[in-house]
Amino acid sequence: MSVSVTVWNEFRHEKKVEAIAKIYPEGIHTVIANGLNEAGLDVRTATLDEPEHGLTKEVLNKTDVLIWWGHAAHGEVSDEIVERVYGRVMDGMGLICLHSAHYSKIFKKCMGTTCNLKWREAGEKERLWVISHGHPIVDGIPEYFEIPQAEMYGECFDIPEPDELVLISWFAGGEVFRSGCCFHRGKGRIFYFRPGHETYPIYYQAEVMKIITNAAKWAAPGSGPAPVFGNRQPLEKLE
Amino acid sequence: MSVSVTVWNEFRHEKKVEAIAKIYPEGIHTVIANGLNEAGLDVRTATLDEPEHGLTKEVLNKTDVLIWWGHAAHGEVSDEIVERVYGRVMDGMGLICLHSAHYSKIFKKCMGTTCNLKWREAGEKERLWVISHGHPIVDGIPEYFEIPQAEMYGECFDIPEPDELVLISWFAGGEVFRSGCCFHRGKGRIFYFRPGHETYPIYYQAEVMKIITNAAKWAAPGSGPAPVFGNRQPLEKLE
Amino acid sequence: MSVSVTVWNEFRHEKKVEAIAKIYPEGIHTVIANGLNEAGLDVRTATLDEPEHGLTKEVLNKTDVLIWWGHAAHGEVSDEIVERVYGRVMDGMGLICLHSAHYSKIFKKCMGTTCNLKWREAGEKERLWVISHGHPIVDGIPEYFEIPQAEMYGECFDIPEPDELVLISWFAGGEVFRSGCCFHRGKGRIFYFRPGHETYPIYYQAEVMKIITNAAKWAAPGSGPAPVFGNRQPLEKLE
Amino acid sequence: MSVSVTVWNEFRHEKKVEAIAKIYPEGIHTVIANGLNEAGLDVRTATLDEPEHGLTKEVLNKTDVLIWWGHAAHGEVSDEIVERVYGRVMDGMGLICLHSAHYSKIFKKCMGTTCNLKWREAGEKERLWVISHGHPIVDGIPEYFEIPQAEMYGECFDIPEPDELVLISWFAGGEVFRSGCCFHRGKGRIFYFRPGHETYPIYYQAEVMKIITNAAKWAAPGSGPAPVFGNRQPLEKLE
Repeated sequence: MSVSVTVWNEFRHEKKVEAIAKIYPEGIHTVIANGLNEAGLDVRTATLDEPEHGLTKEVLNKTDVLIWWGHAAHGEVSDEIVERVYGRVMDGMGLICLHSAHYSKIFKKCMGTTCNLKWREAGEKERLWVISHGHPIVDGIPEYFEIPQAEMYGECFDIPEPDELVLISWFAGGEVFRSGCCFHRGKGRIFYFRPGHETYPIYYQAEVMKIITNAAKWAAPGSGPAPVFGNRQPLEKLE
Repeated sequence: MSVSVTVWNEFRHEKKVEAIAKIYPEGIHTVIANGLNEAGLDVRTATLDEPEHGLTKEVLNKTDVLIWWGHAAHGEVSDEIVERVYGRVMDGMGLICLHSAHYSKIFKKCMGTTCNLKWREAGEKERLWVISHGHPIVDGIPEYFEIPQAEMYGECFDIPEPDELVLISWFAGGEVFRSGCCFHRGKGRIFYFRPGHETYPIYYQAEVMKIITNAAKWAAPGSGPAPVFGNRQPLEKLE
Repeated sequence: MSVSVTVWNEFRHEKKVEAIAKIYPEGIHTVIANGLNEAGLDVRTATLDEPEHGLTKEVLNKTDVLIWWGHAAHGEVSDEIVERVYGRVMDGMGLICLHSAHYSKIFKKCMGTTCNLKWREAGEKERLWVISHGHPIVDGIPEYFEIPQAEMYGECFDIPEPDELVLISWFAGGEVFRSGCCFHRGKGRIFYFRPGHETYPIYYQAEVMKIITNAAKWAAPGSGPAPVFGNRQPLEKLE
Repeated sequence: MSVSVTVWNEFRHEKKVEAIAKIYPEGIHTVIANGLNEAGLDVRTATLDEPEHGLTKEVLNKTDVLIWWGHAAHGEVSDEIVERVYGRVMDGMGLICLHSAHYSKIFKKCMGTTCNLKWREAGEKERLWVISHGHPIVDGIPEYFEIPQAEMYGECFDIPEPDELVLISWFAGGEVFRSGCCFHRGKGRIFYFRPGHETYPIYYQAEVMKIITNAAKWAAPGSGPAPVFGNRQPLEKLE
């Protein structure tokens, strides 16, 4: 199974903020792409400031799974590209939204809710607990793992009830969060995964990359039927 | 429990097509409103061609549950009003979308999918089977009931997996359809209910009005907490 | 809506352990029954050492919702009574299982899983977060509340994915737990609610009793159809 | 991915009833095993009248996915073997229950409901509609397929709401049925698949064997963490 992944990154923080550039000198997308490459997936990257944000029809048509990282510039993503990505998800392309991509146009469009949440930047400890032990997204993951310093995301996370809830986070400051959430939308599969603030080296952590890799495999499209819509005239007599 | 319901109708077919005017001389909304009134609910109506489509802030703020019927003029509903209705659903207002409202802007926005389906106008028999016998929406309903002549709606119905699946339809022509679907979005509850083509007297049928009435009671907002979003600085020490 | 509730308690700890008797001198069931009575519900109690554990056919037939508290003597509950309770749940009686009733015969039978979990008795702080803000079970509840000293229950909680997940707990020692879980089984509704160790005065806490009261109203049976099973010969011709 | 499958069959009808022996001279299990073998899976069979019903600890421990067909002799399956199978499902073994196995001890135990349904033997037409187009269980399947002559199974099917609903059947006589249902129980995955009466050659039909094959791959265990249960003393201080 060769899964073709496109890793999309806003790629602004890394160019503007020295502390972030030190952690991700070539951008968050490069670190994620390297991790997926090492796991044997077929990976390319795309970023906001490329033409069409790097998401041409050609690129999307050969993408099995799109990984999305955005934060400060959600509003600069063109509605036309969002519609293009959305159409591909409906047709079966997988979508993995990381961390602050909870507030991206594409994730909000697919959810139908505000996708709002609580947050706090205090470098506190996060513990992610596996809730669904038999799920392929947690293959090779221990029953919990810790991120030593994380931005807190807390409930209420205003999403529809996930079709499969895989991970719940505990934070030192007293909050909990549904951190690994699967959604089925159209023919596509969507995974929201919480970890990943730009000021911490979280995407270098083995468990985090393992889950992203597993999720890419899980979200890859199969060969189920294309839905048929519209007028089904005339009425047949069935015996 | 006094539930305040607003019944919204596109109200165009009834004014333009004689055959439809014969069935619903005062509009589909009036028949539904009468049924809810008889059941003791507090009801008003609103239609597309009123100012602000009849859905002013004042009206929506006192509406517990909004019932929506639209078909040919979905595109004429202003985006501003759709956003207003959406905001109220996120805050807890119930929403009941009937029949061709599967393709309304507000329903599609809340679902995050295309909401497309199959259809056929052949006046065929429909049988609606109760799947969830303990659900309050089927109080007083037999295990199945029939609509003698219906427009067929068939799967694939491109919606997210319903949070509660209450009814499945059987059609004489060989199709099935998820006809009664509950969704939780934000603080609001949404019910999609399939029956109701404008060329058949379906809203005069007792089981249909009973389900709409039950759904209005089910979708009425409670007094749960308002979600709190945003920055939760600073980190407290918890013992 | 007058809901008829039976509160069942193992009622052993309170008679044997002085520290527990001080908190619940007349038994946990009495405190819960008093709370429900004050909220206007129609309440009776039943305990393990009564004939038929107090759960005669007559009692169960007039019970809308059964509340269950057990801990050390799950094995002493007779299989015949468990079958009787189970039959009533399938027919629509509500069931609320509190705290250590996660391991009761009736809860395990309805779940189809081991219902095992982690636990620790260290008097640590618990915070319960509302996840589903529009759910009637959290009417009148703030977005979170705390139990100052609680026995910890931690994931993995080996239950099927709840049909509705209402509350998630945070524990000072680093665990999380799905603390308020709704299940639909047969015509009946089941609510599992975590709080309530016998050595802490948790059932005197207003939020806890409010949730139990709300859950009793939520779990009360409606008037949906009785499922019809078995042979449906002969084949009718449908047009 | 080499999946190790054990196909279990009651294997009584085929020995006693000539009409059935003609269709399945070596038993239903042999036809299913041959189909899986051709698809490259590693298959063995087991039957009721073998010692330990063919389900020794050794056999079950090397089984990734157990397929179950039973009908007239559910009561003869020993409770000890049922417990053994159940333990393996909790530990991650997949379970596929076919047709009348809806009423097997192991399926009922995992569901926590009666698993009752309607039925009619009239050789009527069945149409199975794909509801979840992106699900791996429908890889290579058209949007619907027909079984020319089938025993009807109709709703109400008294199961918990499936974790994923993949197929819904339409029957000529006016019934509908949730025919392909996924459940997660413990670490295991369960698929209920309706087709397969002993008097029709249904397991020779390509779509039926394709779905069983897909389901075996889907239900195969992964390498997620083993749940850890029990006492977690002492309380650690977390910073």
